Amino acid sequence: MSLLIIGTLAFDDIETPAGRAANEIGGSAAYAALAASFSTPAAIVAIVGEDFPKDTLEQLRSRNIDLSGVEHAKGASFRWAGRYHENLNLRDTLDTQLNVLTQFKAELPPALRDSEVVFLGNIDPDLQLSVLRQLNRPRLVGLDTMNYWLESARPAVLRVLERIDLLIINDEEARLLSGQHNIVKAARAILRLGPKRLLIKRGEYGVLAFGDESIFAMPAYPLEEVFDPTGAGDTFAGGCMGFLAREKGNLSGTPMRRAIAHGSVMASLVVERFGLRRLWELAPADIEARRQAFLRLTDFHGA
Amino acid sequence: MSLLIIGTLAFDDIETPAGRAANEIGGSAAYAALAASFSTPAAIVAIVGEDFPKDTLEQLRSRNIDLSGVEHAKGASFRWAGRYHENLNLRDTLDTQLNVLTQFKAELPPALRDSEVVFLGNIDPDLQLSVLRQLNRPRLVGLDTMNYWLESARPAVLRVLERIDLLIINDEEARLLSGQHNIVKAARAILRLGPKRLLIKRGEYGVLAFGDESIFAMPAYPLEEVFDPTGAGDTFAGGCMGFLAREKGNLSGTPMRRAIAHGSVMASLVVERFGLRRLWELAPADIEARRQAFLRLTDFHGA
Repeated sequence: MSLLIIGTLAFDDIETPAGRAANEIGGSAAYAALAASFSTPAAIVAIVGEDFPKDTLEQLRSRNIDLSGVEHAKGASFRWAGRYHENLNLRDTLDTQLNVLTQFKAELPPALRDSEVVFLGNIDPDLQLSVLRQLNRPRLVGLDTMNYWLESARPAVLRVLERIDLLIINDEEARLLSGQHNIVKAARAILRLGPKRLLIKRGEYGVLAFGDESIFAMPAYPLEEVFDPTGAGDTFAGGCMGFLAREKGNLSGTPMRRAIAHGSVMASLVVERFGLRRLWELAPADIEARRQAFLRLTDFHGA
Repeated sequence: MSLLIIGTLAFDDIETPAGRAANEIGGSAAYAALAASFSTPAAIVAIVGEDFPKDTLEQLRSRNIDLSGVEHAKGASFRWAGRYHENLNLRDTLDTQLNVLTQFKAELPPALRDSEVVFLGNIDPDLQLSVLRQLNRPRLVGLDTMNYWLESARPAVLRVLERIDLLIINDEEARLLSGQHNIVKAARAILRLGPKRLLIKRGEYGVLAFGDESIFAMPAYPLEEVFDPTGAGDTFAGGCMGFLAREKGNLSGTPMRRAIAHGSVMASLVVERFGLRRLWELAPADIEARRQAFLRLTDFHGA
């Protein structure tokens, strides 16, 4: 099955301890779709301005990514600027220019309304609800959201949560959403809000998965050089959802755990260069090598 | 092989979000020896005051723990009081009374000088060096230390590091010792100081192991109720070292990873009740059940 992704296409200006990059192509939909494209055909619903490079769109199409849902608007594309601390878990947003994003309606072309596996990236929860209403027969819907919406539009977020299958957020967001500090209690509270599965991202500490009969913990791969953490969460989500789409939306134990491992592999790769660069150049052999490294990282039974 | 442990026997006054406990028996040697006793006979070198309960010493002996190296001094035993935050990774030390600990000489009775597997708990590095000089044929020496010694007695800590095999510290200590923020760079720098293996404890995020041909990551078990994190690090170290002693000090891949898993199991159990209480009551079946839970927690290959 193919994966439908609703999110952003953007320019990022990034400063990390390893250097800086200006006008990097980014946005949640770009990271998620490119990561997913190694597993399954993807489609993007997003909005771009007149400044968004046609070359990039062409490159995305060449990766089997359907851009029929990308709206072209007058004006400039969404733009974000940020600076990471020595502790890469911390970053300051230096600038956010919504630009054409304020006009985004998340309207699905008719052909995309039959999509069965969908990832709703971090956008206004009212738009996420609108997408859900446009879908004819969703089988698996994954969702991302963030502190901003949990604080400013909580009722809308709760309505979305009732209707989705898989929630992918970070630990800080899980605590804010649930009001619980203990991560297991937070997870139980969130699962009562609707999602069947919950993946909690913990940055350099990896991912916890809840909602199955047992908890699953996937460590992150300890890297000596992290060039740029931008998009790691979206790459994880895209890699994971793409894998699940290939498995026909099966959320049961084994495919789900393998999907999480695959998302972790993709996220560990994307941070090795600025922006999307590592994803563009990635070969299947690189993915397999990192997957083997993850197996060695975590194996203590057979070991 | 038996495990020789140099450390403290103490009284702890503990406040956690789950409640409070006064005059709990604690100290690094108590946690480490009791945890190790499920794998191998242990021996403690420590000092106690006149107030230390004879019952407790008798109970420790009944667990096959040799107390011939415990010195009895006039005065009160070492005492610590602390309060944990809602975030259990944070705690305030409310009071520290060294008492008889100021007289501690760490002198080994002749019979213990032939010990081959030794855990040097977190004490003055000059005492740790003195213990090393008293050992006739150490095969595997594990070490704990802390920020206080890294800041106040760095040259002595460095001399100890040259002579030990396995260093077990937390991530903050690893960064302080190495001057590196990135944990992989920190680990490489520390391994150049002498230890063959390095275990970095990350609290609720588990443990990273370095020094083998590949990095090993062991997640912590996500618990819904953590009553008391006191002694979790010492319990991990004791469980791990006890397992390695049973394996005759073998630090190669498989025994090392299994030892880390076993230490993690023991640490995940000890925090379920105050102080040492969970370790006293623990049955082999509890340990096996938690080991199985760890296997389910981390398995994604066969899964």
